[in-house]
Amino acid sequence: FAGAALLPGGICKFSVWAPFRKQMVLSVLQPQQASYPMVRDDHGYWHVEVDNIQAGTRYKYIPEDGPPLPDPASRSQPEGVHGPSEVVDTHFNWTDDTWQGLDLQELVIYELHTGTFSSSHDFQGVIERLEYLRSLGITAIEIMPVAQFPGSRNWGYDGVYPFAVQDSYGGVKGLKQLVNAAHQHGIAVILDVVYNHLGPEGNYFSQYGPWFTDKYKTPWGPALNFDDAWCDAVRGYYIQNALMWLDEFHIDGLRMDAVHAIWDCSAKHFTAELSEKVYELQAALNKKKLLIAELDLNSPRYIAPRQEGGYGLHAQWIDEFHHALRSLLTGDLNGYYADFGGLAPLAKSFRDSYVYTGQYSSVRKRNFGVYPTGRDYHQFVVFAQNHDQIGNRMLGDRLNSLLPFEAQKLAAAVLLLSPHIPMLFMGEEYGETRPFQFFTSHSDKDLIAGVTEGRKKEFASFAWEGEVPDPQSEETFNNCVLSWETKSVTGTALTELYRFLIAFRKTRQAMQHTSRNSVKVYTPSTHLLAVERAGKDDKVLLLFNFSEHPVQYMHDGEGSLEKKFDSAAAVWNG
Amino acid sequence: FAGAALLPGGICKFSVWAPFRKQMVLSVLQPQQASYPMVRDDHGYWHVEVDNIQAGTRYKYIPEDGPPLPDPASRSQPEGVHGPSEVVDTHFNWTDDTWQGLDLQELVIYELHTGTFSSSHDFQGVIERLEYLRSLGITAIEIMPVAQFPGSRNWGYDGVYPFAVQDSYGGVKGLKQLVNAAHQHGIAVILDVVYNHLGPEGNYFSQYGPWFTDKYKTPWGPALNFDDAWCDAVRGYYIQNALMWLDEFHIDGLRMDAVHAIWDCSAKHFTAELSEKVYELQAALNKKKLLIAELDLNSPRYIAPRQEGGYGLHAQWIDEFHHALRSLLTGDLNGYYADFGGLAPLAKSFRDSYVYTGQYSSVRKRNFGVYPTGRDYHQFVVFAQNHDQIGNRMLGDRLNSLLPFEAQKLAAAVLLLSPHIPMLFMGEEYGETRPFQFFTSHSDKDLIAGVTEGRKKEFASFAWEGEVPDPQSEETFNNCVLSWETKSVTGTALTELYRFLIAFRKTRQAMQHTSRNSVKVYTPSTHLLAVERAGKDDKVLLLFNFSEHPVQYMHDGEGSLEKKFDSAAAVWNG
Repeated sequence: FAGAALLPGGICKFSVWAPFRKQMVLSVLQPQQASYPMVRDDHGYWHVEVDNIQAGTRYKYIPEDGPPLPDPASRSQPEGVHGPSEVVDTHFNWTDDTWQGLDLQELVIYELHTGTFSSSHDFQGVIERLEYLRSLGITAIEIMPVAQFPGSRNWGYDGVYPFAVQDSYGGVKGLKQLVNAAHQHGIAVILDVVYNHLGPEGNYFSQYGPWFTDKYKTPWGPALNFDDAWCDAVRGYYIQNALMWLDEFHIDGLRMDAVHAIWDCSAKHFTAELSEKVYELQAALNKKKLLIAELDLNSPRYIAPRQEGGYGLHAQWIDEFHHALRSLLTGDLNGYYADFGGLAPLAKSFRDSYVYTGQYSSVRKRNFGVYPTGRDYHQFVVFAQNHDQIGNRMLGDRLNSLLPFEAQKLAAAVLLLSPHIPMLFMGEEYGETRPFQFFTSHSDKDLIAGVTEGRKKEFASFAWEGEVPDPQSEETFNNCVLSWETKSVTGTALTELYRFLIAFRKTRQAMQHTSRNSVKVYTPSTHLLAVERAGKDDKVLLLFNFSEHPVQYMHDGEGSLEKKFDSAAAVWNG
Repeated sequence: FAGAALLPGGICKFSVWAPFRKQMVLSVLQPQQASYPMVRDDHGYWHVEVDNIQAGTRYKYIPEDGPPLPDPASRSQPEGVHGPSEVVDTHFNWTDDTWQGLDLQELVIYELHTGTFSSSHDFQGVIERLEYLRSLGITAIEIMPVAQFPGSRNWGYDGVYPFAVQDSYGGVKGLKQLVNAAHQHGIAVILDVVYNHLGPEGNYFSQYGPWFTDKYKTPWGPALNFDDAWCDAVRGYYIQNALMWLDEFHIDGLRMDAVHAIWDCSAKHFTAELSEKVYELQAALNKKKLLIAELDLNSPRYIAPRQEGGYGLHAQWIDEFHHALRSLLTGDLNGYYADFGGLAPLAKSFRDSYVYTGQYSSVRKRNFGVYPTGRDYHQFVVFAQNHDQIGNRMLGDRLNSLLPFEAQKLAAAVLLLSPHIPMLFMGEEYGETRPFQFFTSHSDKDLIAGVTEGRKKEFASFAWEGEVPDPQSEETFNNCVLSWETKSVTGTALTELYRFLIAFRKTRQAMQHTSRNSVKVYTPSTHLLAVERAGKDDKVLLLFNFSEHPVQYMHDGEGSLEKKFDSAAAVWNG
């Protein structure tokens, strides 16, 4: 256990891990200044219990040679990442007792960034749109990381207090209000958590102990220490973090950022230990809890059950589905899209989830991936857009800024009629034209310069023209706030199309089946993808025409076919 | 494929992987000088086929900017690690057609170092003792690495030509003669192979291509590239190497050095790919082939079947059994022995193979290991001594130089009556008193100084006294050559004890059962280990008394007991 916990009777227990420190003092800063020497236990944790501590108390820890440091397990940073930590009251009047969580098969995910979702830039702004999302058919919102980050403008992946909820979003209480309200609307909440790195600013971890190891090199510097000497505290910290969200915050699932960058070659992979603990929590609460990995490895081991030698996560993201769809629709073959292009990769992903299942990747310069044998379709999350695939374009332009209207509708249909779990990115359902760009509000000048430089470098292998927007500029952030201008004819039609497709997905029996033998995939021509989905007493034939012209297709299955949907019909403004 | 292969009709095909090179020329040096430009294929391999090439032809490869380099896949280095490579005739008159190989359960392994096994320092010297080993009951010899290393004195872990057999040992032909002769004696041959690093001298690999990656840090510098861009050639090279030994050389099994240092976080671990190919070879040849890992990870994933999510290796070494036994017998608690001591760790290893199955290790500073659920005892190789555990002591002193005679007999009994696979180190069976020290014959001066320094540093955490022997001195090597002085009374008794125990192990029905439920382990007192081994209609009670005095033990099992063996009896010179 790490952090500051209010116990009954006004006692507060403070604990912090600093195994190599010779001394550690709790320094209370508000409401009254006071110092309390801490005592080290055998595992390198320092503890002290203090009477008469109220929520709102601000504190730091002072090691033998100073200076005072914020708490790595801080629950609140009301003065930002460099300021004191704050003791938090975890009590909340929950009204979601009957909520049970969702199964993977029920998910229609809506990814959102709290800061740019609404003009209030906070959780309250999300709460106000829950009714709209419910009416659209969304069953889960996925919130980009909320752990305290530097300033008020950040995607969230620069967070440095994994236990603290970003103050500018509404803090601990604001997030609980959102989760409670979502559950009232029948909407699950998935939280994006970052366990593979910590942000560059406000990162005091190395001053406490061996949080990092140089066994492995990562894009963000030395790797977090998940398997080297002293790793137990690091593993325990992140497991405690996951359980906090799922238990105290009633969060229904975690989307774990870049799990391939959690370097752990020990006998029990961190994610396997995590899933074990989450299964225990789920059993204790009798509520469904989901673990979804972002994973740049076509390795089903992560999502296989532990009893089959897997790590026991529930699902993983499939960027390859996106890349296959995007390069087919746009013809883009730059950068990592060079591994895709044409209809075949999309057909492969429809059939096998992974596009690369062992064949040579010209981008990775190696044979890549294995077959996801035994893993059902609903263990894979797909998307036509997401924060990365939009925001990591130089101008952050959305798919609907790049594609004609008919192609936008086609993309929506491919996404929502897929047997995989579909995920939308906020605004795509009404054809938002504002970009989603990379933005920060760091205070360290060198870092600001480095980030700007890094963005330019990142786009070097793409042949994009124009200026890279300045991540640090407030204007960049403001440009990305959703307009919610939903009154255009095409925008309205698009929203209705999403609504129809989600409803069709949820209600048509053949669409419920997500085992691998319930789906057949054909490519009758270079531009036509045909997918048969079969239920017990139901069959659906899906035809996706990627040419600009109508095509004829003779289906030789049994029985007669009834046309249920045509994205080019007049009703969809076609 | 890489290397030089003689094809029918006197043609020789030369292939070498050098993906970033602009030019590559085959330079034939003997019998006549000649140059042949090579052609690059899509995967970065350069090829040329040349007429009228005989075995014995010497060659190098010359890249665009020189200088000439030996072949990384050289089959022979008659002038040492810096000299030209030699084309080899792979034909051999095998007479072991009826040999089928052995199952794990049949193994009684004898580890030997070819250079110090006999006064001829070569394979012939081993052949001459095969009859003796057979009469002792040994069923497999395990040969320390034979890949060409610098000079003529080396343990073998500094090898830099994994496909070449050390010339001073007898080369390709000498090894084949040994394997053939061993099979005539009913003895299997296990070869120690090093796939986790390459030696420091004569290592021209980086001049050819991306053999190494800086994703991972190893004790020997950058890691071999098993999962980064361009890794397919590296993986393929080592798989080709394994198949060469098992197929062309009729080797029965590979002992793979430090498999934990084969860094591969991709979807299919290198060892899983290797085991897949070895299973295919085994099926094609209809001969048993074994893969045994040295593994400093208590991770049964490596030895679980691939269909259970494992990597499919057959067995792994258990250093912990050794450490538990050694620290119990000698009271040594220095260095890594600090994690052991007392009877409990040995009892744990007898019961669970691994000593650490998740509990905290004070040496590793973390919770370590998981239970080897589902893995039988015969998947674990144990030893009371081996090259490392002797040779990595400062003076290379053997257990019998450290223990009284009665304790030596006890160690032998613990080893040979264990349900695990037992492995002896050459000479232990007659109480050899010569040491087994670390020796080298490098030619690079800086390296020589570095190795000497490194040895001293390695012993810093142990409280040993005296001078570290000079690894580079020929005298050090000579001191380690087995004396074969077997005429002492205790030496003779020891040999007979080993012979008796091996025979008992092989013939007594209860000793054949190696599933986990056939063994029960008790510790009735702090110095008494009691082990029940049960067969279908047979039971054996093993009592190991680690005190200096007789102890009484009341066994409450059914039936009456008949004493079969007492290591302190007069017949064993007790």
